[in-house]
Amino acid sequence: MDIAILLFDDVNALDAIGPYEVLRHLPDARVRFVAREPGPKHTEDRALSLLADAALDDVVSPSVIVVPGGSGELSQRGDEHVLRWLRTAHATSDYTTSVCTGALVLAAAGLLDDVPATTHWLAHDELRRLGAVPSSERVVSHGRIVTAARVSSGIDMALVLAARIAGDEVAQGIQLAIEYDPMPPFDAGAPHKAPAHVVARQRAGSRFAPT
Amino acid sequence: MDIAILLFDDVNALDAIGPYEVLRHLPDARVRFVAREPGPKHTEDRALSLLADAALDDVVSPSVIVVPGGSGELSQRGDEHVLRWLRTAHATSDYTTSVCTGALVLAAAGLLDDVPATTHWLAHDELRRLGAVPSSERVVSHGRIVTAARVSSGIDMALVLAARIAGDEVAQGIQLAIEYDPMPPFDAGAPHKAPAHVVARQRAGSRFAPT
Repeated sequence: MDIAILLFDDVNALDAIGPYEVLRHLPDARVRFVAREPGPKHTEDRALSLLADAALDDVVSPSVIVVPGGSGELSQRGDEHVLRWLRTAHATSDYTTSVCTGALVLAAAGLLDDVPATTHWLAHDELRRLGAVPSSERVVSHGRIVTAARVSSGIDMALVLAARIAGDEVAQGIQLAIEYDPMPPFDAGAPHKAPAHVVARQRAGSRFAPT
Repeated sequence: MDIAILLFDDVNALDAIGPYEVLRHLPDARVRFVAREPGPKHTEDRALSLLADAALDDVVSPSVIVVPGGSGELSQRGDEHVLRWLRTAHATSDYTTSVCTGALVLAAAGLLDDVPATTHWLAHDELRRLGAVPSSERVVSHGRIVTAARVSSGIDMALVLAARIAGDEVAQGIQLAIEYDPMPPFDAGAPHKAPAHVVARQRAGSRFAPT
């Protein structure tokens, strides 16, 4: 089972690594990090680079596609080579997925037209503009398209996917393998849960804020 | 605030990336990925490499040290250069932390003698053998030493740390920024919660299994 995770400069590392650490434990999984040009792709703050070792054209029919987000998604949306690869790979994939603003790339490729999907909570308008039907669920499944909300939600999404692909017991084993028994010290992980001024500050600082 | 995250071959990517994606949002944070030899460090399944761009000797007094786990921790435990760096850096750090089997490296450096700490749930005996006092809490704070259990627990640990460093409101903002509002599809993320045969299988397949 070939799993292709797209990388690009200014990727959000956890968007990519969360699903990777889940999906790599699937039976016969072979994860490949792909990019338009193989090589190191720096994260949003440039503190780290992740190495993509396959070109898009080297991975033509992955079973699972994962598109992470991060501010670099904008460059991917504008790259016809990437969008064409997504359309072609999606034609034969079992699952085509995204985390956070990765959904905007899927939408730009035309894969989310009239499809219920989720993304970064501040990017719902942008997702709608690109043809999708934004949902505020944390993980949204629509047939073989599965989208996750922001950053850490990719872990939940990948566990949902693991259960669909290999059954509940395998998914539970993976959950145990990453000891995903979350105990955040606060209950502020979603905009309807965080203190209002924390939400307002994040809204004001976002590239998706209304101008 | 300099944050040093140790990398090495056969590192667990999520052990490192979970804390990174939290701590990088701290005010004035500067995250550096350090290794005995800078360069690409491959993950446990070799599907990915993370680029360490600083040598240990380039980062002499970080405020926060993060030691991730992964099967490569064994090589770090046996590397006197790494252990000496940890001892020296710990002498002036505000917080010295680990995720999963990273605790075994801290213990090998002599930093956990008689210290309550946690690690991979199958490595508690090994942690005790190295001088620490194993705890089954998900995140264990003992003064400025903070250890986390397996893999995804590093996210919880880093949020606890963020609150201690910068206050609850900053930590809540970070939790929102990564939308850490976990909704795993199962409740199998800890050995006392997963089905017994799932736990047994993982125990049998572990390098820490009794022989």
